[in-house]
Amino acid sequence: MKNVLGREIPDTRPGGRGGIEVATKPFAGAFASTPQGAKATRPQKTIGRSDEKVLPSLEAAIEATGLCDGMTISFHHSFREGDRLINLVLDACARNGIKDLRLAPTALFSVHAPVVEHIRNGVVSRIEGSMNGPVGAFVSQGGALRDPAVLRSHGGRWRAIEAGDVHIDVAFIAAPQADRYGNACGMRGKTPCGTIAFSSVDAQYADKSVVVTNDLAPYPVHPFEIQQGWTDYVVVVDEIGDPESIASGTLRLTKSPTRLHIARLAADAVIASGMLKDGFSFQGGAGGISLAATKYVGDAMREAGIVGDFAMGGATTMLVDMLHEGLVRAILDGQSFDLDAIASLRDDPAHLIMDPGFYANYDSRGCATYLLDVAFLGATEVDLAFNVNVNTHSDGQLLHGIGGHQDVAAGAAITMITIPTLRGRLPVIVDNVTTVTTPGEAIDVIVTERGVAVNPAREDLRDRFVSAGLPVKTLEEIKAEADRFIQPPRRPLFGDDVIALIEWRDGTVIDAVRRVEGWQ
Amino acid sequence: MKNVLGREIPDTRPGGRGGIEVATKPFAGAFASTPQGAKATRPQKTIGRSDEKVLPSLEAAIEATGLCDGMTISFHHSFREGDRLINLVLDACARNGIKDLRLAPTALFSVHAPVVEHIRNGVVSRIEGSMNGPVGAFVSQGGALRDPAVLRSHGGRWRAIEAGDVHIDVAFIAAPQADRYGNACGMRGKTPCGTIAFSSVDAQYADKSVVVTNDLAPYPVHPFEIQQGWTDYVVVVDEIGDPESIASGTLRLTKSPTRLHIARLAADAVIASGMLKDGFSFQGGAGGISLAATKYVGDAMREAGIVGDFAMGGATTMLVDMLHEGLVRAILDGQSFDLDAIASLRDDPAHLIMDPGFYANYDSRGCATYLLDVAFLGATEVDLAFNVNVNTHSDGQLLHGIGGHQDVAAGAAITMITIPTLRGRLPVIVDNVTTVTTPGEAIDVIVTERGVAVNPAREDLRDRFVSAGLPVKTLEEIKAEADRFIQPPRRPLFGDDVIALIEWRDGTVIDAVRRVEGWQ
Repeated sequence: MKNVLGREIPDTRPGGRGGIEVATKPFAGAFASTPQGAKATRPQKTIGRSDEKVLPSLEAAIEATGLCDGMTISFHHSFREGDRLINLVLDACARNGIKDLRLAPTALFSVHAPVVEHIRNGVVSRIEGSMNGPVGAFVSQGGALRDPAVLRSHGGRWRAIEAGDVHIDVAFIAAPQADRYGNACGMRGKTPCGTIAFSSVDAQYADKSVVVTNDLAPYPVHPFEIQQGWTDYVVVVDEIGDPESIASGTLRLTKSPTRLHIARLAADAVIASGMLKDGFSFQGGAGGISLAATKYVGDAMREAGIVGDFAMGGATTMLVDMLHEGLVRAILDGQSFDLDAIASLRDDPAHLIMDPGFYANYDSRGCATYLLDVAFLGATEVDLAFNVNVNTHSDGQLLHGIGGHQDVAAGAAITMITIPTLRGRLPVIVDNVTTVTTPGEAIDVIVTERGVAVNPAREDLRDRFVSAGLPVKTLEEIKAEADRFIQPPRRPLFGDDVIALIEWRDGTVIDAVRRVEGWQ
Repeated sequence: MKNVLGREIPDTRPGGRGGIEVATKPFAGAFASTPQGAKATRPQKTIGRSDEKVLPSLEAAIEATGLCDGMTISFHHSFREGDRLINLVLDACARNGIKDLRLAPTALFSVHAPVVEHIRNGVVSRIEGSMNGPVGAFVSQGGALRDPAVLRSHGGRWRAIEAGDVHIDVAFIAAPQADRYGNACGMRGKTPCGTIAFSSVDAQYADKSVVVTNDLAPYPVHPFEIQQGWTDYVVVVDEIGDPESIASGTLRLTKSPTRLHIARLAADAVIASGMLKDGFSFQGGAGGISLAATKYVGDAMREAGIVGDFAMGGATTMLVDMLHEGLVRAILDGQSFDLDAIASLRDDPAHLIMDPGFYANYDSRGCATYLLDVAFLGATEVDLAFNVNVNTHSDGQLLHGIGGHQDVAAGAAITMITIPTLRGRLPVIVDNVTTVTTPGEAIDVIVTERGVAVNPAREDLRDRFVSAGLPVKTLEEIKAEADRFIQPPRRPLFGDDVIALIEWRDGTVIDAVRRVEGWQ
């Protein structure tokens, strides 16, 4: 069937606990669906007064939880490229002869390349979660998953678990510090990684929840990101992750003159929008352009004596500096992207842990992104309908997760996509994006080095930008300018097999990714 | 039928959402039951991106939530004797002609005496919640409730809501500070009351949740004790409660020589028990004797250079002083009992909010009381089987709630009841308690001014106390000594009507309270 964007999606998909095929819900608009009924139930648990939870090894936890063929296991990605736990657990599962697992991490990174081998060997047969890098590339080329992978935004994953769309049998939670009763946090310990609140929904809904730590500390370990009442077992291991590898290449301020120009234009657009006043709020992205734009916005706030209500992120040194300087009253921290952010999360009372439900859950009475004034986001591609792709490249390969892109774009009063028109000689503005991650209706402005395009639905903004002297152009005009310099990209030859579903944050399917069989 | 303690309880009781009669589960032992299946579901909710939640009045909230005859409404008691909200809401319901409400507060106090009039007028027909004072007295004498009242411990109430034993239609949450999106906390604002986490389970499970504040502050109000995602509406009123009335008479250190002697004996018993070492943990009660015993234990810790892992409470100035002095590493704060405790909760990073689920939930993978070394608790009566009554007086009147008594007694490695043998000339040690709140199996030691009685199941403790030279006696011996001075109390003439059920923390019924028809 086709959804409202005209994207061809499968009629059915594996759903719910047993993986039985259910009807696909097609995307019908950013706020078109209304959740019905009730959230899924959570398991009843109890414990004796003197029962102990600490187990000697991951193998012991696999045995104690009853983990077996066909089950779903989950993880958070707060260590990003530094994560050790997913590989450790999958290796242990492989040693125990467990097959056919569904892997439901919040995200996979390059460090999880060994997952490819576990797919080949049948240990992993399905993935629900973002894939950054090699696992996505393997899956794109037809890599032997039994069902299509399912990609969800941060808010969408939380929603899906609460709604019962994903049932987790065993949650494994890398915990930089934990106590013997299973209270755990991410900001303390030998190898702090920032918040681990991504896993709090897993811990509450999973049949069994296992906290894995390399720092068992006296009770009570706090803040209670993961609570004793949810935790079945605690395992102590030597290493869960490397904080030095949390900050990846995307987290550095750009030095490219083109990209700095884009950032400058974006900041000028914020100023021209009239939103920049006391109480201002923004999402500071983690890409190089977004970081620079955030810096320029901070400069403007300082000059104008403006204090923002909150900055949201991916917390970085830059946001922490703004908090310390008094430019924002609070940071809402969904992930901690560098060591300064982790230290601030621990030490600054107004640097607040924000779990993905609070951040971004569609099925709730409001999430934090709905109160954003401005957000800077990236894209691999945008098209003339303002649709944004962040998942695939124009060669068709599935190389990135959704992150909070959908959640922030849907929520922010002004969502700006900050992109160069060319990457190398590949075009970024295209007639139709390879994959729709976020629909054009959620995008207000596209800022490029060749000018600023405003969604026709936001004539108010367009007028303000023109009055302020910004280089406002149509997306068609910007594309035409850029097309003079492009080298036609290699086009993927897609097969019929759907290798991944892209869910909109409400659980409907916004697009399907098909197998790449070759390139023309 | 009779439960395992031989207490006569009704065969059936009103249960679940519709109030249909269900079979009563009889108490079978402190850890005898195992919860089955799953917790109750929580309602799905959503909101538009630009929807507003702030309503102009309680009346508007009553209308918006659809509150009508027969529904269940809930409240927290963090303002204790200073609470304004319950009376305000019931008055508004009465003005709107709403009848037959089930009131499910965490507790009622003397300030809620107007509830009696609402019962008489048919606005309130049922109560599930603790009753301290006039409402309990009214109910004891047959005051026109349609169903028996249900009294639960702090942990038991949380459990019951999660299990679906109590379904809340509309939760009203007094919030000393809230933002327009319904994030709310108790430690800030114009009239801070300490933690309001009692209501977090209400906010999550109620069909509709209304935050009522007298201090609407910029977003995001934190800590997120009540979260935006749970909150349907926000109402701003002039007054929600008076913090000066939180500390009641029970919160003062005793000056009575008899009671100080009991406290001294209790502290000596702690020292003799061998539990007092690094990592020690205790519940500091809020009664005069418990406070004094806590002080003496603190003195012993200071002298011995011992640092405790945590103190739990009812947080008071005394616990705060111990935290500041470094005698304990953390306070787990279930309620804030005075203004110093509220300030410390706000300012001390190791003074931690503890919701009743974390504190005391039987249906969880462990609660904080299970890690207590020692707890000091009170009683209105104890009997020769070590059963404890905290709910009724020997005249049969239901005058007190359970609080955390059951939860702490069941959890602590050593539970000490610190009581005088006489109150005026009324006996405290009796052959059979008027009502069993907490079973003898959960009580280890009873400390009186005439000596220390040890539960026969704890011969290990008895031996240590004897070796330490403590005045160890049997409960029969202590009772015999005290009985020489008593004036026989007026005995209640109970009718057949059950006016209240006392639930054990696992949802079984440990006792039933019958109507007092007169006294002999």
